[in-house]
Amino acid sequence: MRNDRDVADVSELLRVGSGVELAAVDAAGVPGLPRRGVARRDPKGWARAELAVLGAELARQQEMLFANAKTDPGDQRRVLLVLQAMDCGGKDGTVKRLARAMNPQGLRIKAFGPPTAEERKHDFLWRIRRALPLPGYVGIFNRSHYEEVLVARVRRLVEPRVWQGRFETINTFERELVDSGFTLVKIMLHISFGEQRERLRQRLDDPTKYWKYDPADVENRAHWTAYQQAYEDVLSRCGTDHAPWYVVPADRKWYRDWAVAHLMLDAFRSLNLRYPPPGFDPQTERKRLSKDETGRAGKVNGR
Amino acid sequence: MRNDRDVADVSELLRVGSGVELAAVDAAGVPGLPRRGVARRDPKGWARAELAVLGAELARQQEMLFANAKTDPGDQRRVLLVLQAMDCGGKDGTVKRLARAMNPQGLRIKAFGPPTAEERKHDFLWRIRRALPLPGYVGIFNRSHYEEVLVARVRRLVEPRVWQGRFETINTFERELVDSGFTLVKIMLHISFGEQRERLRQRLDDPTKYWKYDPADVENRAHWTAYQQAYEDVLSRCGTDHAPWYVVPADRKWYRDWAVAHLMLDAFRSLNLRYPPPGFDPQTERKRLSKDETGRAGKVNGR
Repeated sequence: MRNDRDVADVSELLRVGSGVELAAVDAAGVPGLPRRGVARRDPKGWARAELAVLGAELARQQEMLFANAKTDPGDQRRVLLVLQAMDCGGKDGTVKRLARAMNPQGLRIKAFGPPTAEERKHDFLWRIRRALPLPGYVGIFNRSHYEEVLVARVRRLVEPRVWQGRFETINTFERELVDSGFTLVKIMLHISFGEQRERLRQRLDDPTKYWKYDPADVENRAHWTAYQQAYEDVLSRCGTDHAPWYVVPADRKWYRDWAVAHLMLDAFRSLNLRYPPPGFDPQTERKRLSKDETGRAGKVNGR
Repeated sequence: MRNDRDVADVSELLRVGSGVELAAVDAAGVPGLPRRGVARRDPKGWARAELAVLGAELARQQEMLFANAKTDPGDQRRVLLVLQAMDCGGKDGTVKRLARAMNPQGLRIKAFGPPTAEERKHDFLWRIRRALPLPGYVGIFNRSHYEEVLVARVRRLVEPRVWQGRFETINTFERELVDSGFTLVKIMLHISFGEQRERLRQRLDDPTKYWKYDPADVENRAHWTAYQQAYEDVLSRCGTDHAPWYVVPADRKWYRDWAVAHLMLDAFRSLNLRYPPPGFDPQTERKRLSKDETGRAGKVNGR
């Protein structure tokens, strides 16, 4: 197991609130990474190895969450990761890494694209509510309700008074989720303008990545500053005590994956999960199984 | 890459149809495994290593499927794995192994439990249709519509004429799926009566597995023979050319995982997938990106 004394409190370091300035956050930074030993000599190698350890512990925590919900219908606990980022910010890669560590059957992954015609007929939280994980499950939102105060604002899809009113609606909604058993982890993957260009270029240089490239992404770059400002408002106004926002420097993928796993694990640990006690007597059940051994096996084998 | 000449046609070996007798299928067998070289000396090690290779290729195939559906709205292709097995047959473990190899965002995993009150108000395919994957996605059904001719029959939840009529309904339904772009892979994980006992016992010996144990599973063992007969009817009557059934010996987990990955890969390969051509001119886009480099970066950095 990891030596906790070597790692600063990552959650505390990455948590943001009112007044956050994204320009002051180094997208290539590695906050919380130990500054001595192997982590100093080979930070990438260290973080990748550490990720495997964190992943195994995440899987165990997830199983306990699931087991508790399964054996106790009154247990409403569940975890929801909300991922936001600029284009090429690494949302897909993060989901892939995280999901591979955990049990896919206990995950509810939902990617939100532009609202469909049906979704537009409802209030903006309608499609979000429909995608919420049930108790015992871990939800991962790849984009989320926050798009309605980001792209909707920057690309002027609605009037200012509309998106302005949504901050309070969102805070009320998330308060309701937390009160009904949700643990929320909201993460903005923070990449630089230069790194985004580099990643777009990589898609253009590899025919197996053409399908990920959208010429509209280049147009969106002209709105970079407006998006950063919109993100700052989101982080400032919706980074609450019950549903904090974290900014994860994401130019280095190995740091990003390590930090996200860390934040998820901290969220799980705050639940103090244990494996549930048996709803039966193990000794009695062992005897039943043994009897079955002599009583039934012959008949079955002889069919 | 794997040397295909060393591996027999696994799909052909595991495929079953009318007249199949499960008692004649060795649940601890390893059909299709090479009988020479490393595979002979260390079959488990060989299969685990091979699984990593198959997994990487599966991920690539899945990405091509997804990319085609994304870039061509007329492409309706998708893959659906239907998994059935007795209790402890390894459905959960199989899903976990398979899903970890692939991109979780392109998967639609659905576990079917006993029908809810709402589901019981509809015909038995209603909840199945609602869980079908969209084009470009890979669906995994952990249990399925086949429960309605298995448990419903063995535990007498419906009259015989009801479940008898379902075979034709299912064949018609699956024909409809195939005609609308589905590739179906239906797999029965085949374990022995003794192996089931062993796995139940393991759950009783490990407090972190208590939550998986259900005393009703022991009662179900009394119906083992009836279940095997019900499975034989399923395989015989619904193992069609357009939607074949495979029986995978599953007492050995490493063989099971290898065989399932193989069957999935064969299904993908039958689609002859390629990465789609770009819907833009890469050279033009590279130039746009470069211009953006000199035109915007200064302004953004200086905000």
